[in-house]
Amino acid sequence: MEHIIQSLLDTDFYKFTMGQVVFKEFRNVPVRYAFHFRTKGINLADFIIERELRQELDHVMTLNFNNSDLHYLRGTNEYSERMFYEDYLDFLRILRLPDYSLKFENGLQLEFKGPWPSTIYWETYALSIISELYYRALLKKMSRFERDLVFAEGKIRLNKKIQILKGIPDITISDFATRRRFARRWQEYAITTLAEEMPSSQFLGTSNVKLAMDYGLLPMGTSAHEMYMGMSGIMHADNEDIRQSHNATMRLWYKHYGHGLSIALADNYGSDFFFRDMSQKQAEQWKGVRQDSGDPVAFGEKTIRFYERYNINPREKLIVFSDGLDVPTMVKLYNTFHNRIQITFGWGTNLSNDLGLAPISMVVKLVESNGHGTVKLSDNIAKAIGKPEDIERFKRIFSYDSTYETACTY
Amino acid sequence: MEHIIQSLLDTDFYKFTMGQVVFKEFRNVPVRYAFHFRTKGINLADFIIERELRQELDHVMTLNFNNSDLHYLRGTNEYSERMFYEDYLDFLRILRLPDYSLKFENGLQLEFKGPWPSTIYWETYALSIISELYYRALLKKMSRFERDLVFAEGKIRLNKKIQILKGIPDITISDFATRRRFARRWQEYAITTLAEEMPSSQFLGTSNVKLAMDYGLLPMGTSAHEMYMGMSGIMHADNEDIRQSHNATMRLWYKHYGHGLSIALADNYGSDFFFRDMSQKQAEQWKGVRQDSGDPVAFGEKTIRFYERYNINPREKLIVFSDGLDVPTMVKLYNTFHNRIQITFGWGTNLSNDLGLAPISMVVKLVESNGHGTVKLSDNIAKAIGKPEDIERFKRIFSYDSTYETACTY
Repeated sequence: MEHIIQSLLDTDFYKFTMGQVVFKEFRNVPVRYAFHFRTKGINLADFIIERELRQELDHVMTLNFNNSDLHYLRGTNEYSERMFYEDYLDFLRILRLPDYSLKFENGLQLEFKGPWPSTIYWETYALSIISELYYRALLKKMSRFERDLVFAEGKIRLNKKIQILKGIPDITISDFATRRRFARRWQEYAITTLAEEMPSSQFLGTSNVKLAMDYGLLPMGTSAHEMYMGMSGIMHADNEDIRQSHNATMRLWYKHYGHGLSIALADNYGSDFFFRDMSQKQAEQWKGVRQDSGDPVAFGEKTIRFYERYNINPREKLIVFSDGLDVPTMVKLYNTFHNRIQITFGWGTNLSNDLGLAPISMVVKLVESNGHGTVKLSDNIAKAIGKPEDIERFKRIFSYDSTYETACTY
Repeated sequence: MEHIIQSLLDTDFYKFTMGQVVFKEFRNVPVRYAFHFRTKGINLADFIIERELRQELDHVMTLNFNNSDLHYLRGTNEYSERMFYEDYLDFLRILRLPDYSLKFENGLQLEFKGPWPSTIYWETYALSIISELYYRALLKKMSRFERDLVFAEGKIRLNKKIQILKGIPDITISDFATRRRFARRWQEYAITTLAEEMPSSQFLGTSNVKLAMDYGLLPMGTSAHEMYMGMSGIMHADNEDIRQSHNATMRLWYKHYGHGLSIALADNYGSDFFFRDMSQKQAEQWKGVRQDSGDPVAFGEKTIRFYERYNINPREKLIVFSDGLDVPTMVKLYNTFHNRIQITFGWGTNLSNDLGLAPISMVVKLVESNGHGTVKLSDNIAKAIGKPEDIERFKRIFSYDSTYETACTY
C-alpha cells in the first residue's frame, strides 16, 4: 500500500495561516496536542496495527516542503498580497516534524509535544492517517466485490448530493474534509468530481492545499480552536487574563490578515460569550463567523440578532457553517437564512467519507499550552476538551451556562 | 481503445458443438447470416461509426485459434470424452473467418455469406462488437463522473441480484450473456464476481469459452435455432421434407453428442409442434428442453403435461429457461416449478448489460441455407425470422396457430 501522507501540503490551508502567526508570535511556546477518539463501542486498537500506524507517522517525519510547495504558498494572493512572509517560508523549508508519542493502551494514545510552530502541523496528518488505516482495516475484511461495492455506493451517494445541490444554485460549499476522509484517493476523487460536475459559483474551493494546488482550486480556510486554546496558556496570569485571551486572539489574527481572513470561530468558549466579547468595531470589521457546534439554526438567529443590535445589516455578513454537515442540513439552513444573512458551507466528513461504512468521530486537540491545560467548551458540551477541573474553571470565567449536548457523529 | 474481440474463444460454447456437426455433415452447404435490429426508435447508425465497426470486424478476421485455444477445446470432457474430433480441431487451426458485407443504409445492414462451417462463427463476434460500440457511444457523451456512475450502478444492481439469488440456494444459473453484453470487460467483471460471490452449486458456469478457460469455469451450452433453420434448407424437397428436417436435426445432434448435450431447443417452429414431433423414445433419451420465447410458465406447464403423457416423471427432466430472464422472473419460475420439474436458468442480457442504460434487442440469424430462405417462428411471433411468404408457408407446414406476441426487450 502506498503511504497515506505523500506531501506536507496534504493538510488544511489554515494550518499555514495559523502556523505563520504562531511562528511570528510564539516561536518558543511549548505545546502538547493529544488524540481523542469519541465514537463509543469501537476500540481503534482492534482495527489499527501499531506497526502500520508507526510506519505512516514515521513517513510523515521524513517529508519536507519542497521548492514547488513553497512556490505555491508564496504565490497565494487570494486573501491578501504575499500573505506568507519569506521568513516563515524559510522556516517551512527546513521544518521536520517533531517526534510523536504513541501507546496502545485503553485504545490508542497519541500525543505530540514540542514548540508550537513545528508541532501545529501534526493534527491533520495524524487524523488522516488514523482514519484511512481504520477504513483500510474494514476493507481488508471484505471480498473484492464487497470492496468494489463500497466505492460504487460512495459514487451513487456523491451523485445524489451533487444533483440536489445543483438544484439550489445559491448554495455554496467548500471542502473541509481532509482530516476524517475515507482515504486520500477518495477525497481526491470526490473533490475533482465536485470541480468537474458543479459550477465554480457553487463549489468554491478546498481546504486541502495539495488538492488546491494539483487541481487549480481555491485554497480555503478560517482558523481553529487551537488559536484560542493556545493563547489561554500564554495569557494565563489570572482569570481575567484568560478571559482577555479570547479577544486578544482575534486582534492578533486581524493584525496579521486583516479583512481577508476575518472569519471568527465563534464557539471556543460558547457563542454566548463570543457575541458578548466581540466589539462593535470588530463586528463591523470582520467578514463573519464560523459555526462549528450546537444548534446551527439557533446560532444563525443569534448571529442575526447580534448584528442587528449593532445596526449592522446581516446581509452584508457571512456565516460559515462547518459542523457535521450533510445535504439535508445544508438545505434546511439555506431555506432558513437565505436572503437574511450570507451563508456558506464548509463540508467535512459527509463529503469525503460517505460510502456506506459508519463514520468515526475523532480529533487531535491542543490540550496544553505554555505549561497550562487548555479548554474548549463549544456550543455542545459533548465536544468539550480539557481536564474536568479546567472545564469547570473556564465555564465560570466565560460565564458559560449552555446545557446543549448532543453526541458527535463525526 | 482496445479491440473488442481479442480471442476467437470469446464466443458461446455451442458455436463449437454446432460448428463441429456442421463441419462433419455440411462442409459445403452455403449459408447467409443477417443482422436484425429489433429496438424501435433507435437508429444504430446514429451511434456507431462505420470506420470503427469495420476496424473491429476486420480485426476478428485477423484472429486465429492458437495452440492453447485448441488444447482447451481438446481437453473438454464435461459432456463426453474427447467430444471435439481431431479433424475439426485441425479445421479450426487453419480457419479464418470469411469476409462480411456491411452497408449503412436504413440503419446498419450486416451480412455474412460462405460455407456454413466457417460462417457460423460470425454471429456472436458481430453482436458483441455492435453492442459494445453502441454503449461506448453512449459513454462518450458522458462526463467522467457520469461514466463512473454507470459502473457504480451496475455493481449495485449486480449485488442486489446476487443477494436475492443466494437467498434461494436451489436456483441455479449460467451465464448466456456474451452476445448482448455491455462490454467484454464488464461481462468478465460480472462473471468473475458471480464465481467469487456465489457457491458453485448455484453459479454453474458460462457459455463464454474464453471466460470459462481463463477462470476455470464450466463451459455451458445447448444448441441454437440455426441448426433447425440450416437443416430446413438442406431437407427442402417438399413440405414434408421440411417438416421432417426438424426431427432430423435432433437425431443428428443426438448421434454426435448423445445424452451429454441432449437439451433440445423447443421453439423454432413453436413448442406445440415441438412436443407433437418429439417421440416417446426421444422424450426418454433427452435430458430436457430449452425455452427461449413465449410465456415461460405456460411452456413449463406444457412440458410437464408432455412428459406425463409419456409416463415420464418430469422431476427427472430439465427445462433450461433462457428468454429475457431477470431475477423476478427466475424467482417466479422457481416458485412455480420447484419440485415439479428440474429447472435452470441461462441468464443473458440482464446479467451482462444492466447498468442503468436501456438495453437494445438484436440478433444475427441464419436467413438462407443451401439457397433457400429459412424460418424461425418461435413461441412469440414478434421474434419470427424469415421472408413473409416463407413464414406463412412454414406456419402451415408446422401447423403453427399460436398468436402470442410480445415486444422483445433484449
